[in-house]
Amino acid sequence: MSDIEDLTQRMRAFTEAREWGRFHDPKSLALALVGEVGELAELLQWLPADELTTAVRQQPLHDRLGEEMADVLLYLLRLADVVGLDLAEATRSKLAVNGLRFPPASSWSTAPIKE
Amino acid sequence: MSDIEDLTQRMRAFTEAREWGRFHDPKSLALALVGEVGELAELLQWLPADELTTAVRQQPLHDRLGEEMADVLLYLLRLADVVGLDLAEATRSKLAVNGLRFPPASSWSTAPIKE
Amino acid sequence: MSDIEDLTQRMRAFTEAREWGRFHDPKSLALALVGEVGELAELLQWLPADELTTAVRQQPLHDRLGEEMADVLLYLLRLADVVGLDLAEATRSKLAVNGLRFPPASSWSTAPIKE
Amino acid sequence: MSDIEDLTQRMRAFTEAREWGRFHDPKSLALALVGEVGELAELLQWLPADELTTAVRQQPLHDRLGEEMADVLLYLLRLADVVGLDLAEATRSKLAVNGLRFPPASSWSTAPIKE
Repeated sequence: MSDIEDLTQRMRAFTEAREWGRFHDPKSLALALVGEVGELAELLQWLPADELTTAVRQQPLHDRLGEEMADVLLYLLRLADVVGLDLAEATRSKLAVNGLRFPPASSWSTAPIKE
Repeated sequence: MSDIEDLTQRMRAFTEAREWGRFHDPKSLALALVGEVGELAELLQWLPADELTTAVRQQPLHDRLGEEMADVLLYLLRLADVVGLDLAEATRSKLAVNGLRFPPASSWSTAPIKE
Repeated sequence: MSDIEDLTQRMRAFTEAREWGRFHDPKSLALALVGEVGELAELLQWLPADELTTAVRQQPLHDRLGEEMADVLLYLLRLADVVGLDLAEATRSKLAVNGLRFPPASSWSTAPIKE
Repeated sequence: MSDIEDLTQRMRAFTEAREWGRFHDPKSLALALVGEVGELAELLQWLPADELTTAVRQQPLHDRLGEEMADVLLYLLRLADVVGLDLAEATRSKLAVNGLRFPPASSWSTAPIKE
């Protein structure tokens, strides 16, 4: 079993053991995802740009980032489960679409323009 | 190879083929993640609460949700890669911690209190 | 003096008294804004849809919502200040544009479509 | 009348003229706020840290930032209105609390620690 499927099933079992399924409608889960993204943002917000690369690899920040990114992933997997989506498949498919939309180039001089 | 590792490597190759690595510092990637979470929120925001469960399984919304959730996952995996984190491992570990923090109960009557 | 201008000046004085101006570049402030929006989301996420209207007017939730919305506004005003924008003027102007984009109608049957 | 009160009333009138009040429950408005914060993040995400200060003052980016920050403010004011909060008062009060929590110091050497 793939790890995305494994983690999705564990998160579902975690939810069911606590009878929290009734709270897990898509809008509520999206807000929970936002809450976790907010906690991730708080860890990064005041780090000086020129110290970022080293700062994110130092403890305790490194582990704290892992915890918040894990929470983001758990709610994302839970939302996909509730919506009935195969997230691994949807992501492979989106990456293929992105590859066509932004062809590789040897001389991109700017960041991608957001359409 | 696991899904998470496979998608992380594909996203890294996608980035390198476009020479976008120079844009992918942790704060910029966190803002990109927020941008994709915002697009996901826009798909859900005005759906009436009592039609949510059926609405998210109808087309074209179902596929659109998959695309935006895929973009959220791609930036999350890219951020973990840049930070040097094993996200699958961090998530298994966080789920174990959450299991201790919120013991299963046969009669939870309220949602978990956010600490 | 308008209250938006007054609050902007107070937030600027607060920042300068702590010598925090060096942390307040636009990307860092945007992440700080996201952090506060995340805290607001956490207050709302598990409230049942059919109890929302009454729940948000009860204490202590009502005051907690005020605190988090205040933090969102403070970082938004700070960002506008750093960027050199007159936010009150920009908002009046945007509301006028929105009025043209979505003409009033006596029989809208659906929510606005996000373009 | 204050700016905040004026804009709140205009946004309420805008909503009522389109009969959109039925969509404006607190969780839906919070998601709409997240959507606009996401659009703001997209404008900033790939700007290089050392060009930020000048980039945000150049057109067309400067006006685009004003539009997205205006949308964030409009949904924030709408949410405060629906919740029954005086946002200007709540913000003055929060700023006073923050002033006690983080006393001014002549030699802060780091960013504020998030509690």
